[in-house]
Amino acid sequence: MGEKVSVSILGLGVVGSGVVKLIKDHQEELAHRLGCSVHVKSVLVRDLEKARDITIEETLLTTNPNDILEDPEVDIIVEVMGGIEESFQLILKAFSVKKHVVTANKDLVALHGAELQQAADRNQCDFYYEASVAGGIPILRGITDGLSSDRIQQVMGIVNGTTNYILTKMNNEGVSYENALKEAQHLGFAEADPTADVEGLDAARKMAILGRLAFSTNIDLEEVEVAGIKNLELEDLKYGERLGYTMKLIGFASCQDGEVEVNVQPTLLSKNHPLADVKNEYNAVYVYGEAVGETMFYGPGAGSLPTATAVVSDLVTVIKNMKLGVSGHSTIKPRFKKELKTAEKRMGQYYIRLHVKDEVGAFSTISSLFNTFNISFKRILQTPIKKHETAEIILVTHQTSLATFHASLKDLKELDVVQEIKSYYKVEGDVEREMAGVTQTL
Amino acid sequence: MGEKVSVSILGLGVVGSGVVKLIKDHQEELAHRLGCSVHVKSVLVRDLEKARDITIEETLLTTNPNDILEDPEVDIIVEVMGGIEESFQLILKAFSVKKHVVTANKDLVALHGAELQQAADRNQCDFYYEASVAGGIPILRGITDGLSSDRIQQVMGIVNGTTNYILTKMNNEGVSYENALKEAQHLGFAEADPTADVEGLDAARKMAILGRLAFSTNIDLEEVEVAGIKNLELEDLKYGERLGYTMKLIGFASCQDGEVEVNVQPTLLSKNHPLADVKNEYNAVYVYGEAVGETMFYGPGAGSLPTATAVVSDLVTVIKNMKLGVSGHSTIKPRFKKELKTAEKRMGQYYIRLHVKDEVGAFSTISSLFNTFNISFKRILQTPIKKHETAEIILVTHQTSLATFHASLKDLKELDVVQEIKSYYKVEGDVEREMAGVTQTL
Repeated sequence: MGEKVSVSILGLGVVGSGVVKLIKDHQEELAHRLGCSVHVKSVLVRDLEKARDITIEETLLTTNPNDILEDPEVDIIVEVMGGIEESFQLILKAFSVKKHVVTANKDLVALHGAELQQAADRNQCDFYYEASVAGGIPILRGITDGLSSDRIQQVMGIVNGTTNYILTKMNNEGVSYENALKEAQHLGFAEADPTADVEGLDAARKMAILGRLAFSTNIDLEEVEVAGIKNLELEDLKYGERLGYTMKLIGFASCQDGEVEVNVQPTLLSKNHPLADVKNEYNAVYVYGEAVGETMFYGPGAGSLPTATAVVSDLVTVIKNMKLGVSGHSTIKPRFKKELKTAEKRMGQYYIRLHVKDEVGAFSTISSLFNTFNISFKRILQTPIKKHETAEIILVTHQTSLATFHASLKDLKELDVVQEIKSYYKVEGDVEREMAGVTQTL
Repeated sequence: MGEKVSVSILGLGVVGSGVVKLIKDHQEELAHRLGCSVHVKSVLVRDLEKARDITIEETLLTTNPNDILEDPEVDIIVEVMGGIEESFQLILKAFSVKKHVVTANKDLVALHGAELQQAADRNQCDFYYEASVAGGIPILRGITDGLSSDRIQQVMGIVNGTTNYILTKMNNEGVSYENALKEAQHLGFAEADPTADVEGLDAARKMAILGRLAFSTNIDLEEVEVAGIKNLELEDLKYGERLGYTMKLIGFASCQDGEVEVNVQPTLLSKNHPLADVKNEYNAVYVYGEAVGETMFYGPGAGSLPTATAVVSDLVTVIKNMKLGVSGHSTIKPRFKKELKTAEKRMGQYYIRLHVKDEVGAFSTISSLFNTFNISFKRILQTPIKKHETAEIILVTHQTSLATFHASLKDLKELDVVQEIKSYYKVEGDVEREMAGVTQTL
């Protein structure tokens, strides 16, 4: 390696353009920090003729990946083209010809991360992917380096900006899901096809990556339970607000004694929780470590330059490793074979909204049913809906297992006084303190 | 270096005990992560007989630092004894005998950090001090590694837990400074002599360290302007609250074109700012980077195990470097000779509370004075204090320079209608949007 490091970029979309710009604009700082200059050698694009926001020498562009992979001068490949199969093959090939790889591709890392890491290790190459989770927030480093001496027990993340923007709108302005989505699309915070975001799949991919690093074990994407925000009703956000909770799409990962749980679901978060104040398109990851306690990392989860910052910070690390002659030593091998936590061991609090017949004794019937399951309540709120001779009841349980909770819901449906279970959500961050609930008998 | 790394600890107080406990409890994880075991070889204490919270083999303890410094088996020294002169000499000696050093000593790093770093470099030793700023939050890494590709323009920190606890109490419960301090002392969040905390000196040390790393330049402790919270009156917190601000002790560091400003002062922070929600004894550091935009790192700023987590994470880094044979390469040399920003260039918004004569034309006199300085107002609030024939006026300015602001205050004092300038504070995070103020004429 000479006085100049050559980087080639696969993809010149939003993130790729940001990377080109950042490398160009920060030449002086990079040279100071690394003692060598960093330049973009070539860029893979689909269409040479396409109009772009960025000015780049035409001679750098190519539509043939082999122009890059077979170029002996290229030291590092930055993959920001997205997609799975093609990028997977290109990265594998890059490792086979001893090129280091930095990627921002969460879909790919969530699905094939373990395999790619092995290929990198085999070839003594570096493989970094800070930008794949929570854009500009250096959270992967926070977990693998900053908290490397601690046992991480829980990771909770607002890791999808689109859904957080929609939920913030719904919560603060009382607009419906559909209208909030439209506004998010208008502002460029949601894509034309928002499926991956609103169904929680994007968040699930990031949680698989976070869980893998936090707990030092393999987590398969299909092991992450997912529920999205498409069917959320404003009523539940409003009741949540009244009871001191904010509705957020929370990625949750916990590990106890080698038993792991990872899921993504709309969650009523206590307003006292640090994540509750994370608004609009911002992301944040809350990490609970046995020794350190509560920490949180907050910042922009997407965007051209924020994401490019994470990519180029990874580049800096890769180049330092090259200079020090220690490439390919970054991996921490999975430490244990995990088991998934069973529903009997998954403890949690739940919010339930029910419609019941507005008649004497109805609440007492419901309450004794939960009693048989040993489920007690932290908060109870009841409002009559006069025109239907129906009452609406909101319950927030104390801790119970997921298995017991589901069993109780099954029996609840069978009760004659229960007209409908309208909704139920997990509750998080609700420290046990004085009862703030309002109890009313029917 | 064999299969075992030997660490010796200078000091067995709150943090030292935490480090001993963490190394002991996390043996298995450390061995997995590092491929070698880590053990505590010896501990420097002042008094061998002292009763301690921690069980430790008596044979490990010594009162003679040379037992540690001259022990060829010791690879790394952890300095957690505090103080300045003695630890300074011991660390210099440690480097001279090629031992790596990890410290949690903010006073020492703020005063002699540059000199110690040079000594480390000369001897090809590692020198890390993550625990010296914001306890368990991996903020130094966040700046030096996570955001290494960006140009950091501003760092704002709540970096002193004691004062943040006191201000949270005053703000939420309306208790006076004196009573809040007593409660903080009772709970162990404030020391018997709270001077260094409440006068802002502790925060100033941390800001000198943060500024140095964020802007890659040397910052001397005496270049940090400091104001503490001792003279805060509840009135100003209440008016702040009413206008949408929370009073926080903010460490502020900014850098533009090589011109630097670092200070610590009570600041009225817009409630929309991410730091405004940081409560009680928690710390947080907000970093604004040119490319990444807003990020924030939140967590415990003190405490035995949180601080020990940062120390042991540094140990992990030092041991990895030893194993890879790349010790002593961690420094980024200061990049430029800074200049301090002059008062003419220090732009900001200010809150002012005045007592004026409650007479016709008073406000107009004041308003035309500020007009001559080209200072305009974002918010104006006026309430009569009947019994004194006095009116209280609260003003929040738009952006103005510190020099202009001070000149206006000087002239303001001379005005016949002005009885007293009760207080003034810097305002931060107040994004320019619609006027939310209430304007009243006298």
